[in-house]
Amino acid sequence: MLSKAISTLKAWFPAPAVHAHCDGPCGVYDPSAARINAEAVLSMTKKIMDLEIPATSDKAAWITYENTLSRYVAIKEEQAQKAKEEILILWTDYFKPVHLDKYPDLHDTFWKAAKLCSACKVEVSLQHAQELMEAVQKIHNMFWATKDRDVSWYTAS
Amino acid sequence: MLSKAISTLKAWFPAPAVHAHCDGPCGVYDPSAARINAEAVLSMTKKIMDLEIPATSDKAAWITYENTLSRYVAIKEEQAQKAKEEILILWTDYFKPVHLDKYPDLHDTFWKAAKLCSACKVEVSLQHAQELMEAVQKIHNMFWATKDRDVSWYTAS
Amino acid sequence: MLSKAISTLKAWFPAPAVHAHCDGPCGVYDPSAARINAEAVLSMTKKIMDLEIPATSDKAAWITYENTLSRYVAIKEEQAQKAKEEILILWTDYFKPVHLDKYPDLHDTFWKAAKLCSACKVEVSLQHAQELMEAVQKIHNMFWATKDRDVSWYTAS
Amino acid sequence: MLSKAISTLKAWFPAPAVHAHCDGPCGVYDPSAARINAEAVLSMTKKIMDLEIPATSDKAAWITYENTLSRYVAIKEEQAQKAKEEILILWTDYFKPVHLDKYPDLHDTFWKAAKLCSACKVEVSLQHAQELMEAVQKIHNMFWATKDRDVSWYTAS
Amino acid sequence: MLSKAISTLKAWFPAPAVHAHCDGPCGVYDPSAARINAEAVLSMTKKIMDLEIPATSDKAAWITYENTLSRYVAIKEEQAQKAKEEILILWTDYFKPVHLDKYPDLHDTFWKAAKLCSACKVEVSLQHAQELMEAVQKIHNMFWATKDRDVSWYTAS
Amino acid sequence: MLSKAISTLKAWFPAPAVHAHCDGPCGVYDPSAARINAEAVLSMTKKIMDLEIPATSDKAAWITYENTLSRYVAIKEEQAQKAKEEILILWTDYFKPVHLDKYPDLHDTFWKAAKLCSACKVEVSLQHAQELMEAVQKIHNMFWATKDRDVSWYTAS
Repeated sequence: MLSKAISTLKAWFPAPAVHAHCDGPCGVYDPSAARINAEAVLSMTKKIMDLEIPATSDKAAWITYENTLSRYVAIKEEQAQKAKEEILILWTDYFKPVHLDKYPDLHDTFWKAAKLCSACKVEVSLQHAQELMEAVQKIHNMFWATKDRDVSWYTAS
Repeated sequence: MLSKAISTLKAWFPAPAVHAHCDGPCGVYDPSAARINAEAVLSMTKKIMDLEIPATSDKAAWITYENTLSRYVAIKEEQAQKAKEEILILWTDYFKPVHLDKYPDLHDTFWKAAKLCSACKVEVSLQHAQELMEAVQKIHNMFWATKDRDVSWYTAS
Repeated sequence: MLSKAISTLKAWFPAPAVHAHCDGPCGVYDPSAARINAEAVLSMTKKIMDLEIPATSDKAAWITYENTLSRYVAIKEEQAQKAKEEILILWTDYFKPVHLDKYPDLHDTFWKAAKLCSACKVEVSLQHAQELMEAVQKIHNMFWATKDRDVSWYTAS
Repeated sequence: MLSKAISTLKAWFPAPAVHAHCDGPCGVYDPSAARINAEAVLSMTKKIMDLEIPATSDKAAWITYENTLSRYVAIKEEQAQKAKEEILILWTDYFKPVHLDKYPDLHDTFWKAAKLCSACKVEVSLQHAQELMEAVQKIHNMFWATKDRDVSWYTAS
Repeated sequence: MLSKAISTLKAWFPAPAVHAHCDGPCGVYDPSAARINAEAVLSMTKKIMDLEIPATSDKAAWITYENTLSRYVAIKEEQAQKAKEEILILWTDYFKPVHLDKYPDLHDTFWKAAKLCSACKVEVSLQHAQELMEAVQKIHNMFWATKDRDVSWYTAS
Repeated sequence: MLSKAISTLKAWFPAPAVHAHCDGPCGVYDPSAARINAEAVLSMTKKIMDLEIPATSDKAAWITYENTLSRYVAIKEEQAQKAKEEILILWTDYFKPVHLDKYPDLHDTFWKAAKLCSACKVEVSLQHAQELMEAVQKIHNMFWATKDRDVSWYTAS
């Protein structure tokens, strides 16, 4: 009934225990989504750096190279963008004012992580890609600590 | 040089060890992506079933109810679609003919999992949502077995 | 040449004057994008509240009502999501550490604005929709002040 | 009730005063959205033209160059596409037959503007990028004139 | 070489024979894409009208009904939007000034077709959905006539 | 009423005659969507191979070349991805267990077709692009045979 619906609704937002990855709130979030994207950014960064550059006079080799490099840059871009989105969802939707006591540097942690995603797009930098992985791991640890759960950090690649 | 580029390229596709989640191949895949989406489908399914239906004569309550229900259905739809996409990427890009020896029912496993995603859209069914979680877990086990790694199955919600 | 390319690249990031709305950096940003989306959220919120609820026994009227309401909720959702994205691009890509002196509450301003976007999705609330417009206006003022420009705040609707 | 719902619905479409940017109709439109995208097209066009081309023998410089150029072309593409979409929304959803008296060349204006977006994709042309800005400004003036409002034309970059 | 590249480039745009569905120009276009979307709009419109409305007191039936109706409206919306996009690509990218002699009402034909897409979103109207099919068929005939080809009009449903 | 709604719902899924291209089920599907995308992949593949490679010392020619090549690779990528999606929708949503009697190699046909889409992305291969067209034609024939209809295979380019 009406009063039950209203009290239920109020319990959702801005209740401290609400976490959403889709603004439902559906109660499902997992930093592994951001981790997968960050792993791809690192992988593509390495692959771009490993490509041999053929001579432009060798047409077939040049086409293969340009097709491959172009795709790698685009995939790096897309994965860095997705990593940024996943990271920001955690900041805007999961973390709440109650978490600021335990993590007074919460905003700065997320700001830096998002800016690292941009750096990985703008540059082909192994350093930034590794820093991004570390930033995501830091967020992974903070996240699971707030839920009092011990979920291992692992990489798929 | 050209010959090195070509042999490198040939090693990628259709080499048995190539796995991609973005057709790079970037070498990063993790069934946890599909698992997160499936968890959200289950969560939204439960939330839809738990909503109290107010009287249409109570305008404020009715608007709240319709806004909430409408959003829940849309999020369930979106998450079921994403789960389907993640599942299919594994089938088309990760699994290779060499895997058919160990998993002769590979195609049927994935076909059924994808059809379960559709069922979760078309219906509000706790049974199908749970079957989808089981299908994703089966795929998780197959996937990590092919990589000789023991990665725990866990849920974020 | 290499040194010129490197010094040019370093000048872009994290140089204080870099602003991007597409991680180019392309140097183009304008809070009016977020403003348009916020106006639409407010507009749809009002329209949802104004709809008359017909009797379910009147099939034709009921279908019209459900089609309209469903679409309004979906458009409100989409526009609130776009507003959130536009707001976050400003936070992650435009604003830099140098701005924290003048705006020590920068992070909190953006955090609250993003959470208002979520509130406008989850609820049908004139209050939150208006608060969102005010949050965007506050960001508009901060933004143009950092650029030493006086660009009027206006609404299109 | 039914008759009120129907007369309300009829008032929306194709009433001469209906304007939408999201087919709500939500009543919110602003050519500044198209203007921001067009500014980015111009900005990226200039940036592409300004890049120094290193020697392919300098691997690090070449990777930086290709990453940067590839991204610039992709951003130019994306922004030109968005500009086209925003321009077309105005043509299909905002402008109505009643406007043809005042603007007999309405269709041609929009047709040319859309084709300019394509030209900016297909070429790296400062001329076309500037013509696109002029086309958007022309549309800005027509738009606000139909609403009897004087909204300044300004650029964010 | 340079002169060859330039003459090739000039031959593409605004050459009268250039047609693109992706601004490549890739030279591939087919109104059947728009036709498939329009068929789906018609199909969903009929399905919405055929749904029986249960009593709100029957919770299970009500949830099924709302899930189904909500999805149908969303799919109708998505398909009408895609139809609009496919129609507009033909107008902006395929048709050229040379076609205006044979089709002086070209702009109006496309304007009306796009506005029909909006009407099909805003209303649940069998009439508009059928008019949209007729508009697409008219465009199909114009298109293939300009290519001097006789491609049958058929429907998939 | 309830029983009618339930029997109608059960008739949709998993009834053998249900076919959807949007999980409605809307009953509209047509392999021509996949065919259009595959044609574009072939067209872009040819265009990439036909581009002349200018000297890097000729800046204007080099910019034109890189802009064009970059766009062609991106469009090939996008169209190959869309072809893959359209192909998979047929496999997951249209084809049912009842079809396995007539087409025991159904899964393998679709698996290979999807992997060809990936090959067309990863390589610039006329052979793979033509094989993809053949794979789509095979699917076209299977599809219309299951519907007892004779719909001609034609290409738009």
